[in-house]
Amino acid sequence: MNKIDLYFTPAEVQDSDLADKLVIVIDVLRASTTAAVALANGAREIIPVASIDAAGELKQKLGKEHVLLCGERDGIKIEGFDLGNSPAEYEPKAVKDKALIFCSTNGSKAMLKGGQGVFCLVGGLVNLSEVLRFAVREQKDTAIICSGSGGKFSFEDAVTGGKYIAELEKKLGRELDKNDGARAALQLFRREETDLYAALRSSFHGKYLVTLGFEADIRASAQLDSVPVVPLFTGGRIVRHQPETVTAQ
Amino acid sequence: MNKIDLYFTPAEVQDSDLADKLVIVIDVLRASTTAAVALANGAREIIPVASIDAAGELKQKLGKEHVLLCGERDGIKIEGFDLGNSPAEYEPKAVKDKALIFCSTNGSKAMLKGGQGVFCLVGGLVNLSEVLRFAVREQKDTAIICSGSGGKFSFEDAVTGGKYIAELEKKLGRELDKNDGARAALQLFRREETDLYAALRSSFHGKYLVTLGFEADIRASAQLDSVPVVPLFTGGRIVRHQPETVTAQ
Repeated sequence: MNKIDLYFTPAEVQDSDLADKLVIVIDVLRASTTAAVALANGAREIIPVASIDAAGELKQKLGKEHVLLCGERDGIKIEGFDLGNSPAEYEPKAVKDKALIFCSTNGSKAMLKGGQGVFCLVGGLVNLSEVLRFAVREQKDTAIICSGSGGKFSFEDAVTGGKYIAELEKKLGRELDKNDGARAALQLFRREETDLYAALRSSFHGKYLVTLGFEADIRASAQLDSVPVVPLFTGGRIVRHQPETVTAQ
Repeated sequence: MNKIDLYFTPAEVQDSDLADKLVIVIDVLRASTTAAVALANGAREIIPVASIDAAGELKQKLGKEHVLLCGERDGIKIEGFDLGNSPAEYEPKAVKDKALIFCSTNGSKAMLKGGQGVFCLVGGLVNLSEVLRFAVREQKDTAIICSGSGGKFSFEDAVTGGKYIAELEKKLGRELDKNDGARAALQLFRREETDLYAALRSSFHGKYLVTLGFEADIRASAQLDSVPVVPLFTGGRIVRHQPETVTAQ
């Protein structure tokens, strides 16, 4: 593992950028957090889809039993859906053994793009150390895709991406070769590292979530390593990576 | 003027983001610099086009006299074109009274996108104060579009954009309302402000230009206010804004 690239929006990424890469998709407010919480609480799988129509069609195909429609537009649960994008909704009684069809404004698209990598993990602050443990074990050059917000740069994903890079270099004990995005994200993180909650909350999307009454979600999303699961996107589904299958280091 | 938005790539920008905005397009290495130099040296107009084919077609239409084909791919002059994208080529004897059809990898596309604003200026470090003087006079909310590099975030444009924001706030004597991109660019600039040449040279594209032998272009592009002209993109053409038409403040 020598190289770490970071992209601030999925639109920056071409498929060729991900060839032979381990990919970490970040949508810290809130899809990454929600995915980790859902899998920790027993959801069987999360299936990201790009549109509301695609979600409905997939539900028709999979049947109604044990399948939930999940997602938001402009931060609010989609009409007729079972769950929105607040991690607080993804309690065990709601999601245990369920397949979640997941359609968020930004995260779903970034996940579908990230699926072009050799491995694709979904990373937030709540599961950072577990995701990095997986990455370090695989020893692959890594690409971080920030979901951004409505196709635009988002500060909260950039700072979280910077935290991933800082911790990865600390674990490896050496500097990695960074693209311009990775270098910038690391610099942005350095200014914010003493209070990541404040960084998330001060972002455009963070402020918007506060107006919707989701401040608790921001606090939950900033709790480092509070949900130590590895969401692994493989074959079109995000499943919980089972650490017992891991070979010793 | 209350708001300043910055976008790291043209793909982040929707036309609605530019409604009633003054737009500053930045491609500091090297299209912004080249445009300022060309107009300072007497070029009549610069016509940005999105593709090599479009450039050829337009040349057919405009005729050969007083028209030059200009532009690069991967930093190198396009085969059969008259000039590349090195500001050093745009001497008076080459460009005086000429119309320049301009096709660069990133800058041309950003300029065409920026043309959706009420005003669109092309800004580099070489003409920063002049461009900001125009912006402050117009009193409009402002959007900065960084050209990026191959559709990706570029460090040199981000830092230059941050410098624009820092100087604009200094001129106005107050803070502006910033989107996440503007906030991040300003933070990135603050780390680099003591040596903008080093910042440009250390970027991915800067290092690439050095390998091509264009280090002098980087040095020229970093010379603050060395080419005090305002390239104004209007009606599909970039012309030199004539300060004598300006009303007194």
